Amino acid sequence: MPGSLEKLIEALRCLPSVGPKSAQRMAYHLLQRDRPGAQQLADALADALVHIRHCQRCNTFTENECCERCASGKRDASLLCVVEMPVDLNMMEQTHAFKGLYYVLMGRLSPLDGIGPKELRLDRLLERAGDGVVKEVVMATNFTNEGEATAHYLSELLHARGLKVSRIARGLPVGGELEFTDAGTIAQAFYERRDY
Amino acid sequence: MPGSLEKLIEALRCLPSVGPKSAQRMAYHLLQRDRPGAQQLADALADALVHIRHCQRCNTFTENECCERCASGKRDASLLCVVEMPVDLNMMEQTHAFKGLYYVLMGRLSPLDGIGPKELRLDRLLERAGDGVVKEVVMATNFTNEGEATAHYLSELLHARGLKVSRIARGLPVGGELEFTDAGTIAQAFYERRDY
Repeated sequence: MPGSLEKLIEALRCLPSVGPKSAQRMAYHLLQRDRPGAQQLADALADALVHIRHCQRCNTFTENECCERCASGKRDASLLCVVEMPVDLNMMEQTHAFKGLYYVLMGRLSPLDGIGPKELRLDRLLERAGDGVVKEVVMATNFTNEGEATAHYLSELLHARGLKVSRIARGLPVGGELEFTDAGTIAQAFYERRDY
Repeated sequence: MPGSLEKLIEALRCLPSVGPKSAQRMAYHLLQRDRPGAQQLADALADALVHIRHCQRCNTFTENECCERCASGKRDASLLCVVEMPVDLNMMEQTHAFKGLYYVLMGRLSPLDGIGPKELRLDRLLERAGDGVVKEVVMATNFTNEGEATAHYLSELLHARGLKVSRIARGLPVGGELEFTDAGTIAQAFYERRDY
């Protein structure tokens, strides 16, 4: 196999869940059927590596020092919502229910993958939340084991700094029927019931 | 979303079986966890696009005018084996059973995907097979519907040019037991039985 083809196949394996077979198939596809696409991908990668960095305030991807949302000044700076990834931030924004600011962890605590508080740079979140303006931190990490552990760990650190910490609710989905909901979710909805 | 991030996600979709969700996951992964990998991928793509071309004789990927195998002069030039992809050529080589030369179609006839004789450039294979040295063309396309159709179509064209055309055999695998073989394969093994 030519050297540059071998290198391309090896390089494609840096993509998540791409093994040797997929990498080979991708390389053949690009070189045989979509050279313009391959060129665009090479350019887009190089361009993104140069321009994309993390927002100084909320840690999401941006091309500027500070992302538009953090820079706008139109949001409620006393509320800080912590999410795992930019995609979670987008989902939250689509609800139009939250008018505060965000902090994007860019991951979650995951000891098995070697991602601890240091790798997630939780010190930066603590610094951000301790700016004197933030009054309440809303934990909106996922309800997976790792997301829950991250929320729990963070809540203790933030409590110790005298901040109010809350967690988005678990329960039945809107329009949900008990008959088609798993027992764990129903149990949580019961424990977290609210006064009428 | 920053423009260069959006462009990267869009560009990643040129990879086979990568949809919008996977592309987003890949982009986040590269920018967040593997920037050196992303740089290597960008470089490898650019490098492969410059250096990889098709062998003038066998049509496989190579960095030279002619691939090493075709240029070696040590192979039996009277036998030409037609395969779909370079990976099939590699499998064939691993058998050490074939000492002739190859022609790699870089695909198969697939009318539904808009790939006909013209797109596969079968005229180049006909020209290659008609060099006066080739005596027999061995069809080693896959035993899928498309591979079979490709072999059949090519065999007629090659026959018309007075060449001997053969097809690799169908039958039970080495070590195979009838009990665990599908009926279609057993039927073929019966039809294609050989005299003892």
